[in-house]
Amino acid sequence: MTMAIILGDHQYGKAENRIVRIVRDTARHTIADVNVSTCLRGDFDAAHLTGDQGAVLPTDTQKQTAYAYAKTIGLESIEAYALALATHFVDDVEPVREARVEVERYDWTRVDADGTGAGHDHTWVRSGQEVRTASVTVSGTADARRTWVTGGLKDLVILKSTGSEFHGFLEDEFTVLEPTHDRVMATALNAKWRFDGTEVDWNATYAAIKHALTSTFATQHSLALQQTLYAMGTAVLESVPAVVEVRLSAPNKHHFEYDLGRFGIENHGEVFHADDRPYGLIQASAIRDDAPDAGPAWTPYTGLV
Amino acid sequence: MTMAIILGDHQYGKAENRIVRIVRDTARHTIADVNVSTCLRGDFDAAHLTGDQGAVLPTDTQKQTAYAYAKTIGLESIEAYALALATHFVDDVEPVREARVEVERYDWTRVDADGTGAGHDHTWVRSGQEVRTASVTVSGTADARRTWVTGGLKDLVILKSTGSEFHGFLEDEFTVLEPTHDRVMATALNAKWRFDGTEVDWNATYAAIKHALTSTFATQHSLALQQTLYAMGTAVLESVPAVVEVRLSAPNKHHFEYDLGRFGIENHGEVFHADDRPYGLIQASAIRDDAPDAGPAWTPYTGLV
Amino acid sequence: MTMAIILGDHQYGKAENRIVRIVRDTARHTIADVNVSTCLRGDFDAAHLTGDQGAVLPTDTQKQTAYAYAKTIGLESIEAYALALATHFVDDVEPVREARVEVERYDWTRVDADGTGAGHDHTWVRSGQEVRTASVTVSGTADARRTWVTGGLKDLVILKSTGSEFHGFLEDEFTVLEPTHDRVMATALNAKWRFDGTEVDWNATYAAIKHALTSTFATQHSLALQQTLYAMGTAVLESVPAVVEVRLSAPNKHHFEYDLGRFGIENHGEVFHADDRPYGLIQASAIRDDAPDAGPAWTPYTGLV
Amino acid sequence: MTMAIILGDHQYGKAENRIVRIVRDTARHTIADVNVSTCLRGDFDAAHLTGDQGAVLPTDTQKQTAYAYAKTIGLESIEAYALALATHFVDDVEPVREARVEVERYDWTRVDADGTGAGHDHTWVRSGQEVRTASVTVSGTADARRTWVTGGLKDLVILKSTGSEFHGFLEDEFTVLEPTHDRVMATALNAKWRFDGTEVDWNATYAAIKHALTSTFATQHSLALQQTLYAMGTAVLESVPAVVEVRLSAPNKHHFEYDLGRFGIENHGEVFHADDRPYGLIQASAIRDDAPDAGPAWTPYTGLV
Repeated sequence: MTMAIILGDHQYGKAENRIVRIVRDTARHTIADVNVSTCLRGDFDAAHLTGDQGAVLPTDTQKQTAYAYAKTIGLESIEAYALALATHFVDDVEPVREARVEVERYDWTRVDADGTGAGHDHTWVRSGQEVRTASVTVSGTADARRTWVTGGLKDLVILKSTGSEFHGFLEDEFTVLEPTHDRVMATALNAKWRFDGTEVDWNATYAAIKHALTSTFATQHSLALQQTLYAMGTAVLESVPAVVEVRLSAPNKHHFEYDLGRFGIENHGEVFHADDRPYGLIQASAIRDDAPDAGPAWTPYTGLV
Repeated sequence: MTMAIILGDHQYGKAENRIVRIVRDTARHTIADVNVSTCLRGDFDAAHLTGDQGAVLPTDTQKQTAYAYAKTIGLESIEAYALALATHFVDDVEPVREARVEVERYDWTRVDADGTGAGHDHTWVRSGQEVRTASVTVSGTADARRTWVTGGLKDLVILKSTGSEFHGFLEDEFTVLEPTHDRVMATALNAKWRFDGTEVDWNATYAAIKHALTSTFATQHSLALQQTLYAMGTAVLESVPAVVEVRLSAPNKHHFEYDLGRFGIENHGEVFHADDRPYGLIQASAIRDDAPDAGPAWTPYTGLV
Repeated sequence: MTMAIILGDHQYGKAENRIVRIVRDTARHTIADVNVSTCLRGDFDAAHLTGDQGAVLPTDTQKQTAYAYAKTIGLESIEAYALALATHFVDDVEPVREARVEVERYDWTRVDADGTGAGHDHTWVRSGQEVRTASVTVSGTADARRTWVTGGLKDLVILKSTGSEFHGFLEDEFTVLEPTHDRVMATALNAKWRFDGTEVDWNATYAAIKHALTSTFATQHSLALQQTLYAMGTAVLESVPAVVEVRLSAPNKHHFEYDLGRFGIENHGEVFHADDRPYGLIQASAIRDDAPDAGPAWTPYTGLV
Repeated sequence: MTMAIILGDHQYGKAENRIVRIVRDTARHTIADVNVSTCLRGDFDAAHLTGDQGAVLPTDTQKQTAYAYAKTIGLESIEAYALALATHFVDDVEPVREARVEVERYDWTRVDADGTGAGHDHTWVRSGQEVRTASVTVSGTADARRTWVTGGLKDLVILKSTGSEFHGFLEDEFTVLEPTHDRVMATALNAKWRFDGTEVDWNATYAAIKHALTSTFATQHSLALQQTLYAMGTAVLESVPAVVEVRLSAPNKHHFEYDLGRFGIENHGEVFHADDRPYGLIQASAIRDDAPDAGPAWTPYTGLV
């Protein structure tokens, strides 16, 4: 038998370019602080088979381009920046069939140096709450062009101290969990949403989506994290027409009520141990029934392995 | 317009159960140190739509089961353990259509307390080199049963101080990189391989694959990291018949030759700065041309978002 | 020769108790989220010399006590909580000569679910900006009692995009750095301050100190990070009489202006690469000339090694 | 009253220079992979008080010097390298009164590419076990010169599956821990040792000390981690005359026997949950009774805050 080995999926790029962009046209500066990763897909077979780099644009060049575009395109919105950068790779670098650009954005808050609330002109502290994310995938040139944009946020740590139950679950011989009618529910939310089209006010939309997610988590009485996640996704779809799908991943950051009764101390949902591992991991998605094909929208630049 | 929102993909489980298993049947103990994550897929719609948990086996129960199986099945090989655990969820928990179990294994080395090289009976130091990984996905019961097993390793930091070139690459207006005919090449390798079938000597196979990967990295003269990765994948397929596909992800951990010439000091590939970010990220795969369908083999338990 | 080996410094405790305290006396809950570490010093020689644990209060007991005090004392201020806990160990556990308790506090912000700005009654997102810290060391009982309290903050990432220079420095044969009259200055500030006495409004004082630190960083024109740090310390001492010493550690998070001139693109302080390592580390302190002896105030619970 | 504020302790340097040194004089290369941090102490008051940098050697220059010395001095032993670098700063940079250099060294193992055990000439995998550390403090020039050297290791994860007890401890009203006569004992050891003098075979000494530490941990029957640590320190002092003090910090990485009895499964010290936090933290030291003054030997370069 002559078994043949062939080259399978492959891609390459430059990960985690840590770019900071200051706009200083006036005395009141603005800052954009991002982490940019690029990924190219196309006909790079020769590089794998013989080491011939003739079709390979170096990852160093991708880096230079990412920094250059931070000036020429700017970083007012990460989605627009990523669209420009990904389109450049597909349009201007011949062997590239598809380009994916992912961006993380770290938010900053102006220091209230004079106590007026106006915020200092050129000094900020890192907000440190959630990280805003975006991905753009551009495939093909000219007539065959297709584009997918997702937005997202990650590491949004959110907690409610009541309004959450968990009972009536399936039991088997390994089930020892006690049902509860009042618990702390907390997660470090990782959410992504897929847009239909690119005519979007990216920054306003982000604010609206974050509000839909957090206010739903707060106000919906929860019988299960699954129910809460689906309600959050639905709330986004109902309030933002440009979004066609929402995916949510929520590690259940367990807060165990501490047993103080052993010491004669009452503890009615007041003192908890915040545990690290293991944790429940709940993942859910809400989608419009007429959503277009997701294509490579959900395939991350790290996605091969 | 009546736009409908529907429940999309969803799954849930217990992540990062840190289980240590000691076998102490004789005075010479053995240790298995693992991190187990479980993930269930099936008809959990009611939990999302109404909060009804009747079909939901709690993640706490999944945890209890993972610890129990560490005793009843044992952890001699992580693949066999994951097979048993995933099969249990599909066979014994009615609403579960598909179960995925992922395991990381941390290696330990016996302390050479007496200097003989025999190693101490019950004391080890963490080896701390690569982490061995495995995933098992079991889908359907009885006649419709399908099973996928992958093995892998991650965080294998490997470096060669010569025998690596990079030149002849594509150039555009943002290309400033100098070609090189002798460089340091280093990566923190993340590899996964897919098996055909489950009749495998898992531990012996792992050793053979690791040897194929590292010896190919060492001995193949490299014109590009892409070429090296594909050669490594091919070497695995050629030496291990049970493997049908190999996927490799290699962050190019850049070692920049330090400019000492400014100080009148020669530096011919002797002193380097090991940079953190950004890094090239090269991903490639090798596959047999008659490999069966991968199904959900490559979809991680964290895969929805 | 008869060389004698003796027991040197030693201490022990329970590190990183992750306690969350909810106050739910009314529908408007409050949350305190802390990480508590305890450390006991005293006559524990027998434990080291012979393994006799008769004088050793288990670290597990220290943990239980930390959780119990989260209920009985509460966590309205971490300084008051730590004072109570440390005093308990010294007063009530006979072999303990000195106790140190360190607390980190993570801040949370109410979710603005209804858009009024009032904030939700029982749902928060982690603020994620700086971590507030405190240490209390209590030494001796009754008449011989001495107490030291420090407050602090860490990981406050702060950046100014102008108003910072660096030139006129000492040069030697290894100096290649170019002087600059306008640069980005950024750090992840780690600050600690020492109180004189314990009659302090801890929470109000914390807010005042944070304001003094950040507003000075913003408004003082900087010729060097050293100058800025000393000005920040001085500002705290001038505005908060209860503080007698301020210590500041500031990793200089380098933002390198990116060379876009190679591509014909102007870059006048607009696009930067935020580098990870190496980083300058500048440490300075300001102290009142009549400050009492610091004693063990600055010796962390991890301090032996 | 005129309260005066004065400049307190201060120091500065360049942290975490990630230097890799290849020796390629023959086809059989060697590698040294280190993380170097420098710290200068002296009369830098003007920098703090007025921003005058005239006495301040930039941290960038310290970095350049660290890389240059990796070539001119080499990195055969990290202690000899640090001695040369610290001495240079004190001798050649006028305002420097005292210099501290700390080095971490990551070990690499040759790939056994041909299966002979000889190891490949120029390819290694990171060993990933413990990190070797050293610090050198040089104070004063010429006649007033004093030098302190410490060696160390950190993150040596070591575990014994039997031969460890814990009982007979002090109990109070918060004590619920059960005594045990057979437990898993594990830690991530952080150890430092202080040398008397600098006429030492650094690398051979390191190997001897590591052997003393690990073999004592393995073979001594333990009644408490305190006892084990002191025995380990004593073993080092007894076997290595050049060392005068050993300090050990050992997080007690708790392995809790999992309760499988609930499921009718026996678990006699076989299945454990490896918990993350909280953890006991035990610190102890052994010292010769005629050890010279430690001076600044134990004060880390990060030590001010």
